[in-house]
Amino acid sequence: MKKIIFGVDLGGTQIKLGKFDFDGLIDKYAIDTNISDEGSHIIPDIASFIKGNLKKDEELVGLSIGVPGPVACGVVLGAQNINWLKVDVEKEFHKFFPNIIVGVLNDANAALLGECYFGSGKGYKDLVMLTLGTGLGGGILIGGEVYEGATGSSGEVGHICLERNGRSCTCGLKGCLEQYVSATGIVRTAKEVLLNSKEESILRDKDLTSKLIFDSAKVGDKLAIEVTERVTDDLACGIASICNTINPEIVILGGGVSAAGSFLLKKVEEKFVNYAFYSLRFSTKFALAVLGNDAGIYGNYQNILGKIK
Amino acid sequence: MKKIIFGVDLGGTQIKLGKFDFDGLIDKYAIDTNISDEGSHIIPDIASFIKGNLKKDEELVGLSIGVPGPVACGVVLGAQNINWLKVDVEKEFHKFFPNIIVGVLNDANAALLGECYFGSGKGYKDLVMLTLGTGLGGGILIGGEVYEGATGSSGEVGHICLERNGRSCTCGLKGCLEQYVSATGIVRTAKEVLLNSKEESILRDKDLTSKLIFDSAKVGDKLAIEVTERVTDDLACGIASICNTINPEIVILGGGVSAAGSFLLKKVEEKFVNYAFYSLRFSTKFALAVLGNDAGIYGNYQNILGKIK
Repeated sequence: MKKIIFGVDLGGTQIKLGKFDFDGLIDKYAIDTNISDEGSHIIPDIASFIKGNLKKDEELVGLSIGVPGPVACGVVLGAQNINWLKVDVEKEFHKFFPNIIVGVLNDANAALLGECYFGSGKGYKDLVMLTLGTGLGGGILIGGEVYEGATGSSGEVGHICLERNGRSCTCGLKGCLEQYVSATGIVRTAKEVLLNSKEESILRDKDLTSKLIFDSAKVGDKLAIEVTERVTDDLACGIASICNTINPEIVILGGGVSAAGSFLLKKVEEKFVNYAFYSLRFSTKFALAVLGNDAGIYGNYQNILGKIK
Repeated sequence: MKKIIFGVDLGGTQIKLGKFDFDGLIDKYAIDTNISDEGSHIIPDIASFIKGNLKKDEELVGLSIGVPGPVACGVVLGAQNINWLKVDVEKEFHKFFPNIIVGVLNDANAALLGECYFGSGKGYKDLVMLTLGTGLGGGILIGGEVYEGATGSSGEVGHICLERNGRSCTCGLKGCLEQYVSATGIVRTAKEVLLNSKEESILRDKDLTSKLIFDSAKVGDKLAIEVTERVTDDLACGIASICNTINPEIVILGGGVSAAGSFLLKKVEEKFVNYAFYSLRFSTKFALAVLGNDAGIYGNYQNILGKIK
C-alpha cells in the first residue's frame, strides 16, 4: 500500500486539499466550504472527499489542516470565518480515520512552514516571511520551527512603529508599518503623492491598486516611481528593525504586493543597507515567495512529515 | 570530594571569578588582567588563582569563561581589549586541568544567561534583555537558550531605527535607538532640552550624566522630567518594535541607566502600551536586572551546569 498524506487549507469560502506521498505532491483539489450549522459539516465534508479520492492501493497515514483562527494543543479556539467556536480537530477526524496522525495549524503558520520547507525558504532554518496583502503579516522560523512567541503574538511586525504620530492603524496605534507598506498603505501613499503634485501621471483619476502603481513605475511614470521609492524605503526600514533584532538568514516577501517581483525586491535590498546594522547589511538574503496559494497545503504536509520523521 | 565549578568574567582590566558548587555561589574574587605578551598570561593567571583557591576536599569539575569578543566553537576570534588574536580556550585550560569541562562564552551572552537563570529572568524561557550603558546592547533568550541569530548578530537592537534621518550613530546609520536611550543618548537629549528652553534647572552648567538627569527628575526638576519623559518614550517605542517582532514573556532592563530603578521602569511600562500591538500591551512583563556585575560569573556557571546536566 502506498502511504498518503493530505495537507488541507481551510478558508472561509474554499477548502484546498493536497494529496501527497513521501516524494511530494500527487494532486491538488478545492471544494466549497459549508459554514452552516456552526461549521459542523466541514470535517465530514473533508473526510468524505478524501475517502473518495484514495485509490485502492493507497492508505491514508496522516492529515493536517490549516485553520483561520488560533490553535492551542490541537484545538481550534474561535475561528469566525468558518463559524467554529471550539473544535477538537484530532478527535473529529479520528471518527472517520481512527488510526492516522492528525495535525492542525494556524493558517498563517501553515503558509510559513510551506514556503520555508518547499518554497523560497528551502534549506534555511532562521527566516522571516512578510505577507504584504491588505494588511502586513509576519512569520518567523527559528531553528527550523515556527516561532510563535510567549503568547502566540510573534511576527506582529505590521505594527512596528515606522512613524511616531503617523497614520492611524486599525489596531488603535499610530504610524504602524502596515499602514505604509501593505496594499492599502501603498495606495494611501500614492494618494498623498498625487495630491501634493501637479505632475501628470498614469495614476490620476484611476482606481488605485498596488499593482497599478508598481506597473506604472515599471514603465517610467514619475509619480508612480516616487511612490514606489517611498514605499520600498518604508519597507526596508521596517525589515531592518526586524533583522537588527533577530538576524535571520533570509527575508521572504509574499502576498499580493510581492507580485511586483524583482522590481520590488531589488529596491528593498538596495535601501536595506541604509537601515541595517553593518554585520547584517550584506549577509541578509532576500527572496520572493514562490508557492502563492499552495503554501498552506505544503505547510500542512510538512507538519505531518515532521511528526512522522 | 566536593565538586566545584568556576565562572569567570574576563574584562580588559579585571578578571572576576565566582566559585560555585551545585547549590550555588560559595565565594567571589577579582584579579587584575595582565594583557601583555598578546594576553598570554591570562589563562595561566586564572589557572594559578583557581588552584590556590581550592580546598583539600574540593575538586574542580568545570570552568567557563566569558570573553569580550566573538566566540566560535570554543575558540575566541579577536578580542582587542585583552590582546587575544585567536585562542583555543578549552585547549589552553586543559594544560592545567586536563579532566574538567571547559566552556567559553561571549561576555554579553554570559551576562544574559546569568540574569536569565539566576536573576530577574529566572523561570522565563523567552526573554529580551537590554543593557543601557554607554551604548545599548541587547540579548535574546528563546526556549531557554541564547539566540545568536544566523550570523551572530541578533540583539543589535541599539540600531533599530527610531527616527529616520535622526542623530548620527557610530555604526554609520542615522536615528539609531542607541543614540537616544543609552547613557550617551540621554545626555544628548538633555543638552537639546536645555538649549531649547530658558527655564531654570538643576541640570544647567553641570557635568551631565544619566544618573544626574534621573535623580533631578525624581526631585521634580521640570526640564529633567521633560528629558526623562522623552527618553522613556523613545525606549518604550524601541522595546515595542522588538516585542511586536518576537513577543517575549519579559523584558529586562540592565546597565548603568537602569540604576534609575522603578522610576524608569514604570514610565517605560506606561508608554509601552502606546506602541505595542494590543495582544502584547498587558501580557509583556518588565523587570530590572538584579545581578549587576555578577551576571557574567553566574552565566558562566550556568554554561557548565547546562553541559553537565
